[in-house]
Amino acid sequence: MDSLTSFFNPKSVAVIGASKSPGKIGNVIVKNIISSGYTGNVFPVNPKEKEIEGLVCYASVIAAPEPVELAVISVPAPLVLDMATACGDRGVKNLVVITAGFKETGKEGLRLEHKLVEICRSYKMRMLGPNCVGFMDTHTPLNASFSTGFPLKGEIAFISQSGAMVLSILDWSHSVGLGFSKFISLGNKADLTESHFIENAADDPHTKVILCYIEDVENGPLFLETARRASRKKPIVILKSGTSQAGARAASSHTGALAGSNIAYEAAFRQCGVIRAGSMPELFDLAIAFANQPVPRGERVAIITNSGGPGIVATDNIELKNLKMARFTRETVEQLRKELPAESNIYNPVDVLGDAKADRYRFALDKVLADPGVDSAIVLLCPGGVTEPVDTARAMVEMNGTYPAKPLFAAYMGGKQIEEGAKLLSAAKIPCFPFPEPVISSISGMTSYHRIKNASGNKERHSFDNVDSKTVETILENVRTDKRLVLLGSEAAKVLAAYGIATAATELATQPEEAAELADEMGYPVVLKIASPKIMHKTDVGGVITGLDSYEKVRKGFIEIIEKIQRYMPRTVIYGVEVQKMMPKGTELIIGMTRDVQFGPLIAFGLGGIYVNLIKDVSFRLANGLTDAEIKKMITETKAYTLLRGYRGEKPADLQAIVEVIGRFAQLVTDFSEITEVDINPLFAYNRGASAVDVKITIS
Amino acid sequence: MDSLTSFFNPKSVAVIGASKSPGKIGNVIVKNIISSGYTGNVFPVNPKEKEIEGLVCYASVIAAPEPVELAVISVPAPLVLDMATACGDRGVKNLVVITAGFKETGKEGLRLEHKLVEICRSYKMRMLGPNCVGFMDTHTPLNASFSTGFPLKGEIAFISQSGAMVLSILDWSHSVGLGFSKFISLGNKADLTESHFIENAADDPHTKVILCYIEDVENGPLFLETARRASRKKPIVILKSGTSQAGARAASSHTGALAGSNIAYEAAFRQCGVIRAGSMPELFDLAIAFANQPVPRGERVAIITNSGGPGIVATDNIELKNLKMARFTRETVEQLRKELPAESNIYNPVDVLGDAKADRYRFALDKVLADPGVDSAIVLLCPGGVTEPVDTARAMVEMNGTYPAKPLFAAYMGGKQIEEGAKLLSAAKIPCFPFPEPVISSISGMTSYHRIKNASGNKERHSFDNVDSKTVETILENVRTDKRLVLLGSEAAKVLAAYGIATAATELATQPEEAAELADEMGYPVVLKIASPKIMHKTDVGGVITGLDSYEKVRKGFIEIIEKIQRYMPRTVIYGVEVQKMMPKGTELIIGMTRDVQFGPLIAFGLGGIYVNLIKDVSFRLANGLTDAEIKKMITETKAYTLLRGYRGEKPADLQAIVEVIGRFAQLVTDFSEITEVDINPLFAYNRGASAVDVKITIS
Repeated sequence: MDSLTSFFNPKSVAVIGASKSPGKIGNVIVKNIISSGYTGNVFPVNPKEKEIEGLVCYASVIAAPEPVELAVISVPAPLVLDMATACGDRGVKNLVVITAGFKETGKEGLRLEHKLVEICRSYKMRMLGPNCVGFMDTHTPLNASFSTGFPLKGEIAFISQSGAMVLSILDWSHSVGLGFSKFISLGNKADLTESHFIENAADDPHTKVILCYIEDVENGPLFLETARRASRKKPIVILKSGTSQAGARAASSHTGALAGSNIAYEAAFRQCGVIRAGSMPELFDLAIAFANQPVPRGERVAIITNSGGPGIVATDNIELKNLKMARFTRETVEQLRKELPAESNIYNPVDVLGDAKADRYRFALDKVLADPGVDSAIVLLCPGGVTEPVDTARAMVEMNGTYPAKPLFAAYMGGKQIEEGAKLLSAAKIPCFPFPEPVISSISGMTSYHRIKNASGNKERHSFDNVDSKTVETILENVRTDKRLVLLGSEAAKVLAAYGIATAATELATQPEEAAELADEMGYPVVLKIASPKIMHKTDVGGVITGLDSYEKVRKGFIEIIEKIQRYMPRTVIYGVEVQKMMPKGTELIIGMTRDVQFGPLIAFGLGGIYVNLIKDVSFRLANGLTDAEIKKMITETKAYTLLRGYRGEKPADLQAIVEVIGRFAQLVTDFSEITEVDINPLFAYNRGASAVDVKITIS
Repeated sequence: MDSLTSFFNPKSVAVIGASKSPGKIGNVIVKNIISSGYTGNVFPVNPKEKEIEGLVCYASVIAAPEPVELAVISVPAPLVLDMATACGDRGVKNLVVITAGFKETGKEGLRLEHKLVEICRSYKMRMLGPNCVGFMDTHTPLNASFSTGFPLKGEIAFISQSGAMVLSILDWSHSVGLGFSKFISLGNKADLTESHFIENAADDPHTKVILCYIEDVENGPLFLETARRASRKKPIVILKSGTSQAGARAASSHTGALAGSNIAYEAAFRQCGVIRAGSMPELFDLAIAFANQPVPRGERVAIITNSGGPGIVATDNIELKNLKMARFTRETVEQLRKELPAESNIYNPVDVLGDAKADRYRFALDKVLADPGVDSAIVLLCPGGVTEPVDTARAMVEMNGTYPAKPLFAAYMGGKQIEEGAKLLSAAKIPCFPFPEPVISSISGMTSYHRIKNASGNKERHSFDNVDSKTVETILENVRTDKRLVLLGSEAAKVLAAYGIATAATELATQPEEAAELADEMGYPVVLKIASPKIMHKTDVGGVITGLDSYEKVRKGFIEIIEKIQRYMPRTVIYGVEVQKMMPKGTELIIGMTRDVQFGPLIAFGLGGIYVNLIKDVSFRLANGLTDAEIKKMITETKAYTLLRGYRGEKPADLQAIVEVIGRFAQLVTDFSEITEVDINPLFAYNRGASAVDVKITIS
């Protein structure tokens, strides 16, 4: 995607719909480009003007005297297509379409938007928007937007599906002195999407952390591939809204977006190494943390405080946020004991007491940061009579320089008394918060990025060769020919078996003797089940007989079932009776699949049995790129895992076999996109191996 | 507790340990009292001085020329006892002991503290501290602390176990313009505790909301009684720290506090109607909300926004925080449709679009607040070219006046551009936050107070008369005589039965024929269980035989069990074999009790069976003051409730019977404090009635 280099750093920019009237968007954009310090050529385009903001104005982009790399279009919606075509003719490489009135307004707008994209494609132009604020790049520098401000130079790229959020955060960032490399307002994402900008930011030398606000993902598979690659290079923090039912409705009425399920997004972000922010404050707290401090190398946090209460609050939060209180070496403890007052707490959290001046903080911080068991440190400060917030801040800056690999944070709690010290810290890139909780939340997010970058194990999808896709094709073809959407149990069993998943032998019989002979072949005991596409709850209508252990019993059972169904449901189509070998009971698991509109097959794993819906002990992963390492994590997240490890003295189950079943299952549902839903419940897990028992497969 | 009137509003104050040296605590306190505008008499006490800060200084409190109502003591710890005695002799009513060096320093300090309390008791003096910052009351006014600041006048009472937090929050409160009625630094809580100050604040006409930071509760039962009463009058918001294991350790090393379990605190707060803050920011956000806006009358929130993104974020949070998006009446929708631009979203969240000026916000807000289906409203504002943050704020103030019963909040997102508008809102008592999430979190907390105040149902504990405590006493006496701590199953069953809890008949037999006769009496089938205090896992050693359905089988079973145990565990004491009537299988539940160090019996309820520890489907309540309404809530919180209502076509269980069992159980464990632990697992719940099957009771 090299085209984005010319996008962010074009040799020349045309503003189509430039205006002389102050306050008009077409005027604001021209002024913004000039005032941002952009050094390339700027060509205002407006047939009615000769000159705008001191620049020669052209009647058409065609008339521009030099090649145009980027065009910012801000003309009424009906004129946009013509302008885009003119840009194409002039050889423009990239467009920013500010104009609204496309997909977000309904069907007619969507049609217009599709045409606009067609024009771009035909000329090989890339486009941001339509219906966006534009973008800003502080390193080019270039403000190709109608924002009234321009960010401070920094290393955060902010990609936002909400234009208003761009404007709000830009305004806010000045008040806290936070710098950005880029601001990108995505608009309707008709061509360029979050994926393209994430990819670009991952390779941008001026960007250290990638921040996104999105309401949906435009192209699920592209996003997965891009984010997976990008997250190995830089932290990606995303606030995804529209997670609630009401929120999703609001999002859909806002941008006409068809979002996938929140569970699928959760799985997608996790599997791609995206850090999900739970709120707007968390998104920006994390941005500040990542932009200013190194990523901690582990989860062991040291706390230095001048008061007990906030120290306890912080300690609680360390546990809550899956971090660990660092345990100091004996040497560190001894040094602290020797130099700190006797009443100090020399273990973590270190309490340097209410009368601590800067020197005491400095001493404790020096010892604690030198400790090999400490990955990051937090200084808590409450103002008191003798507290020295500014000098303490200076001591922190010094120590942050001495131990540059260990991230350092502060919570300065108070108002006027701590203001100057807090400002000094922020200016020196030591994140300083007004309370302990956001500090710890930020360290937790950073630490999860440490885990993402250092995740061991195979990152590639495991692929099985010994699968028989021909057989599956044939079965599905037959089902379609039969005009059914749900496979018979015997068909479903064969589909799984074809992909190497051990399944209880299941065969369809149409005659009593055939059933008995099948049972003879597979071995006793067996269970008989009525085979009819119309009967969902087979047990309820007397369509199931279990525990049959002889030829004769099976033969009679067949007749009994058929008679019962014919009597009670006389007009029901019956395919016959399925004979299934009864498997020894193992740990009951469930493996399921539903297809997410954005991300494709979503796999569920958990405790099986009749209480599945009650207990809801299920974890989810996308089949897309699912690795063995992720499958193992998926299993360990459930309570079922406790059972599988051997609960109350039972033998542990064959975890590797379950991992393989899920891997093969993922491959099956990926290979056959017509399979829309699968439920294996139960899958019996044994001490050795595992076996699918009841399988339901639905196709489209 | 009238004594606290003279505590907060004394006619005269002595400062014992007053000092002339600026910066010394004894000097700061004298200055604070004077500068706070206190109008009573102030008597500095210091044998070495004649005059301090323009006031006559006395050699001893005895020498004070007028009666002394309050004495603030700040002398070295070894002198405090003598000073307290002198205060007692002078007829002082209340003490504030600033001096540290008591319980928090260890054993010797604790001894000193006990003596100090003894002196107070003997003179009927009440005491705040020791080891505290003191207190401030803005309405008296009086600053009886060594804090360097004094709060703005307001209606929040802040009671804090951390002195540093008092100083921090006081400093912070000035920067956000937040007023307080009182600041109280609890210190070691040797005499006056959080309960006393909560009680007082509940009746204080100047206090609207009670805010607490505590690390533990000093007296569990007193706290429960006080908070239960006070929460009906005013919202109580508490941040309780030390909830994590590490945090509890830090808290205990900080104040030497022996805290109860977090589960017990959670139950205590819930049952008393205390709102628990999850973090420091949440504590103060809630304080701002309660102090400035009325409590919403329901959970239906309306959102008005000028941008889609933040509107969606807010909508997500409404669901997340158990609130509801208001549904407007047809009339409201029509009015909005008529007046707002066509592209606006006229349903909730109302999107007045990016070009909305103040008048459009005002119009929408007017219509929305008038809607009977709206309980509270939020205005979201992102700055854009034409946005009018200040005029929009003015419109909000106007509308807040027009609809005073409906709380109104704002999230103004930005920096410089929204600063003035945000200030205007805060000054007009409309809480304004920089992001949507804290707004919604605050409304959620307020709404839960609405529920607390309006909780229907009997608020008094249900007490059963038809219980036979004599029988229980006798059984426990026998167990003690036998030097056992665990009751036999037959004993435990009789204890429950004595309190009217249906229990599977269980009797101890010492001879085979006795067992068989007992079985004959109770009816078949029965189960036999070895009765021995030393055998915990009876099944594992072959000590259990189930499903015996005749006299002869029971007789033989008895012999078989005894022989097996004697062979494998020859030196084990055997009491005999217990005969238990086998109950028909019902829904398996667990009811348990452990005793919390602070709050007494803590009752657990949930799904029973062998997977109890795996599923962990358990809810908790304190027996203290447990009402039927709370028991019902306790049941509905569990997944077991789904089963009990009738899962997958089964008949619903007898909920009323379960409520009664829990009520009787609570009464039993309250009446007998020597019962330290009980486990009923399972309790079978039936279509009619319920029956305890396996019961384990441990005593101290």
